[in-house]
Amino acid sequence: MRALDLIVKKRNGATLTQEELRFLITGYVNGDIPEYQISSWLMAVYFNGMSREETGFLTRIMIESGTTIDLAGLSGPFVDKHSTGGVGDKVSLILAPLAAVCGLQVPMMSGRSLGHTGGTLDKLESIPGYSTAMSGARFREIIGSVGYAMTGQSKDIVPADRLLYALRDVTGTVESVPLITASILSKKFAEGADSLVFDVKCGKGAFMKTQEDARELATSLVETGKSLGKRIIAVLTNMDEPLGYMVGNFLEVEEAVACLGGESARGPMSMDERSGDLMEVTLRLTAWMLVAGGKAKDVEEAESICRERIADGSAWKTLCANVENQGGDLARMKEYLGTYRAEHRKSVTAEGDGVVTGIDAYKTGMAGVYLGAGRSKTDDDVLPHVGVEIARKVGSRVKKGDKLCVIWGASEESVDRAVALLRDAYTIEANATLEPKNMILEEISTE
Amino acid sequence: MRALDLIVKKRNGATLTQEELRFLITGYVNGDIPEYQISSWLMAVYFNGMSREETGFLTRIMIESGTTIDLAGLSGPFVDKHSTGGVGDKVSLILAPLAAVCGLQVPMMSGRSLGHTGGTLDKLESIPGYSTAMSGARFREIIGSVGYAMTGQSKDIVPADRLLYALRDVTGTVESVPLITASILSKKFAEGADSLVFDVKCGKGAFMKTQEDARELATSLVETGKSLGKRIIAVLTNMDEPLGYMVGNFLEVEEAVACLGGESARGPMSMDERSGDLMEVTLRLTAWMLVAGGKAKDVEEAESICRERIADGSAWKTLCANVENQGGDLARMKEYLGTYRAEHRKSVTAEGDGVVTGIDAYKTGMAGVYLGAGRSKTDDDVLPHVGVEIARKVGSRVKKGDKLCVIWGASEESVDRAVALLRDAYTIEANATLEPKNMILEEISTE
Repeated sequence: MRALDLIVKKRNGATLTQEELRFLITGYVNGDIPEYQISSWLMAVYFNGMSREETGFLTRIMIESGTTIDLAGLSGPFVDKHSTGGVGDKVSLILAPLAAVCGLQVPMMSGRSLGHTGGTLDKLESIPGYSTAMSGARFREIIGSVGYAMTGQSKDIVPADRLLYALRDVTGTVESVPLITASILSKKFAEGADSLVFDVKCGKGAFMKTQEDARELATSLVETGKSLGKRIIAVLTNMDEPLGYMVGNFLEVEEAVACLGGESARGPMSMDERSGDLMEVTLRLTAWMLVAGGKAKDVEEAESICRERIADGSAWKTLCANVENQGGDLARMKEYLGTYRAEHRKSVTAEGDGVVTGIDAYKTGMAGVYLGAGRSKTDDDVLPHVGVEIARKVGSRVKKGDKLCVIWGASEESVDRAVALLRDAYTIEANATLEPKNMILEEISTE
Repeated sequence: MRALDLIVKKRNGATLTQEELRFLITGYVNGDIPEYQISSWLMAVYFNGMSREETGFLTRIMIESGTTIDLAGLSGPFVDKHSTGGVGDKVSLILAPLAAVCGLQVPMMSGRSLGHTGGTLDKLESIPGYSTAMSGARFREIIGSVGYAMTGQSKDIVPADRLLYALRDVTGTVESVPLITASILSKKFAEGADSLVFDVKCGKGAFMKTQEDARELATSLVETGKSLGKRIIAVLTNMDEPLGYMVGNFLEVEEAVACLGGESARGPMSMDERSGDLMEVTLRLTAWMLVAGGKAKDVEEAESICRERIADGSAWKTLCANVENQGGDLARMKEYLGTYRAEHRKSVTAEGDGVVTGIDAYKTGMAGVYLGAGRSKTDDDVLPHVGVEIARKVGSRVKKGDKLCVIWGASEESVDRAVALLRDAYTIEANATLEPKNMILEEISTE
C-alpha cells in the first residue's frame, strides 16, 4: 500500500477501506507518512467528503491510536453529553449532577475555553481548591461514589486526533463535517461512553451559524455513531444570545448553583427567569441522556424526573458531593456566591426605550476574552472572578437608562473594552414585537 | 499575509493575486512555508483550478525563482518547440536543424527518457562523442554559428518547479492543468524563447489519452502564454502507434538522418513511407515555428520552404554542423548508420493474414524500457544501440509469417520480454478497412 495511491483514490471520489485508513493514520502517527501527504489527503476529504461508514472507520482507527478509559467495576449505564461550544454554556455543570442523581454514571471529559467560547474545566476550577486533574483510578472512584466526575482529556487518549487537528488547523481543512465527526466521536467513545447526547449549537455565538450546517453535522454524528453500534441523539439548540445570564467562570458556577436551587451562605438561591433558556436546554439534554440510558421511557417522563430531583434538593447535594470529592472547598464556594467579583465594575444601560431584540453571543463571548474569563491562545491564563451578568435578556422591554448588563474586570481598561463590545452586542428596537424564542430547534436520532 | 488564509481562499474557490502567489511560492522555495501547507494548497488548486491570469502569475513567479538563459548578442527570433512526450518521437532531431536553416534561432533544452517515453538528450548522446552538457556561453555560441543548440535544463532554472514537481509527485496533485501549464511554460520561457510551438500528444502512448484532455491542456498553454504576452501555438497530434519506424536511441537518430536525406557511409539514406506520419507532424510543427518567427506568412508557405531545405540538403548540413559543434564524431556517426545494433536480435511475425489495425505505443515504449533504451528510474543508464524497428505500420496488409518488427537487445532475456510486449502491441484483423489516419488532430492558437 502506498499513501500516494490512497490520496489519489480519495481525490478521485472513491471511498477508502478500513485497512487503507488504518495504513494512513497509523503511518502518520508513527511518523512513517509525512505531513505533506496527510494534508493533501485531508484537503481531498474536504472536497470529496467521506461516507458514513468511512467516517466510522476513521473514528475507530483514531480511537485505536491511543488508550481508552477503563470504567471496569462500575455499573453504568455510561452516558455523556458533548456541546459544540457556546457562550454562557454552563449546561454541563447542571446536567452532570442531575443525570447522576437520576441513576446514570457520567464519565465527563471537558475542554478549556478558547476564543469566544467558554470551557467547563475553567469554570469548575474557579471553585476554590477544585481540581480536574486526577488519575484514572480516582476518576472511576468518584464516578462510583458520586455518579459523575469531571476531568480533562488525557494526552494518551486519541493521539491521532491531536496530530490531525494540529495539521488541519494550519492547512485549511478544519471545516469538514466527516473530519469534525471523527474527531468528536473518537474522543467521546475513547472516554468510555456507551451513549451520547450532542448539543449542536446553532447561531451567532456558535461554530455552526445556520441550522442547515448544524443539521448536517448532527446527522453525521448520529449516523456515524450508528455505524459504530452506538446510540447518539443530537439536539440542535439556539445560540444567538448568551445562554442564561452569566458569562464568566465563577459567575457561571453561581448560575448553575442557582438553577439547582443551591443554598449559599446568604440563604438558598433561586433560578430566575433569566435562566429560562438555559434550563430549557439543560432539561432537554439531560432527559435525552436518561432515555438513552434506559432510565425513562421518553423525554417527557425524563424531564419530570429531572424537575423532581432539582425540587427535592438531591441534584444540588450531588453537585456538592462532587465538589468535595474533587478537592473543592464547599464552604468557601458557598461564601463566594454573589460576592466573588473582580475589582472593577461597570454597567451598560439602555440608550432609549424599546425591546431587546438581540444580544450578540459572539461579541459577548469576546468581551469575556478581553476580561480574562477566556483565552485567545491555548497557553493564556484565565481569571475566575471576571465576566458579564446579563440583566436584560432578549424580549425584555426596557426604558432609557435601565441597566442591561454588569461587567466585572481586573483592570479598568479591560472593563472599558468589554463595555464597548456589550453596548454593540445589544440591539434595542423601539417598536418591536418578538415571537417567543425557540431554544430546541431540532432533535435528530436514529430511532 | 498568512499561508493558511491563502489556502482557505483557494479552497473556497477564489483567485489568488500575484502578490499572494509570490508569498506562497517564494516562501516555499526559501523554506519559510512548510511542505504540508503547499501540498494542501496544491490539492485545493486540483479541485478549484486557477484562472488563466492566475496561472500566468504563477508561471512568472516560478520563472523569477531562478536564473534565465541569456541570449544577448544573438539576433533571434528565438522559437522553440516542446512535446508532451511520446514513443518514437524524434521530431526535435529533425525540426531543430530545419527551423535553424530556415532562419530561426532555436535554444532547445530537452529532457531524458522516463517511463515509456523517450528523451531527446539520450538520443543525441547515442552519437559517439556528442555532448549535451555545456556552458551558457558555449550554448549561445553554437546557436549563433549553427542556428540551434541542444542541451539539458540547468539546475539554476526555475528551482520552484523542481520543488513543486517533487511535492506534486507524492501528493496526488500532478494531474492539474494549470499546474502542468505553469510548470511547462516557466521552464520554456526561462530558456529564452519568444514564441513556442507545442506538440500536445494524444492517444495510447501519450499522457493525454483523449482529445478532450489534450485540448484542455493546449488551450490552457495558449491562453496563459497570451496573458504573459507570448505567442503560443499548440498542435494536437496523434500518438496511438509509435511515431515513424524506429524506437530506441541511435535507431531514432538514424531515422532522423534518413528524413533529412542524410548520406551514410553506405550512400544517401532515404525517408521511406514508414516515416510518413513522423514527417507530417514534424513539417507542421516546424512550419508553425516559422510562422511564429515571421519567416513565412502561413503554414502552407512555411511547409514548402521546409521541404526545399530538406531537398537541397541544407537541413542535413545543419544537423552535421551541430553534431560537430557539440563534440560528435560525424564520420563514426555516418559509419554507424544501419550497423550500430546490439548483439541479440529477434523478429516478431504475423500470426495470420489481415490488416494491422493498431500498434500500442505504450507497450512499444515499455518494450524500449525493458531493452534499456529508456529508464524506469531517473538514475538508470540507457543503451544507445537497442530498440525496435517497426517493419509494418498501422494500415499495412500482412500475410502470416510477415515480419512485423525487429528487436535488438543487449541480452536475450530483454529481447524475449520485448518480443512478448510487441506481439501483444500489434492488433491484426482479418477483414478490416481503415480510414487514413489523421496525424494533425487540432491546432490551437490565439490568432
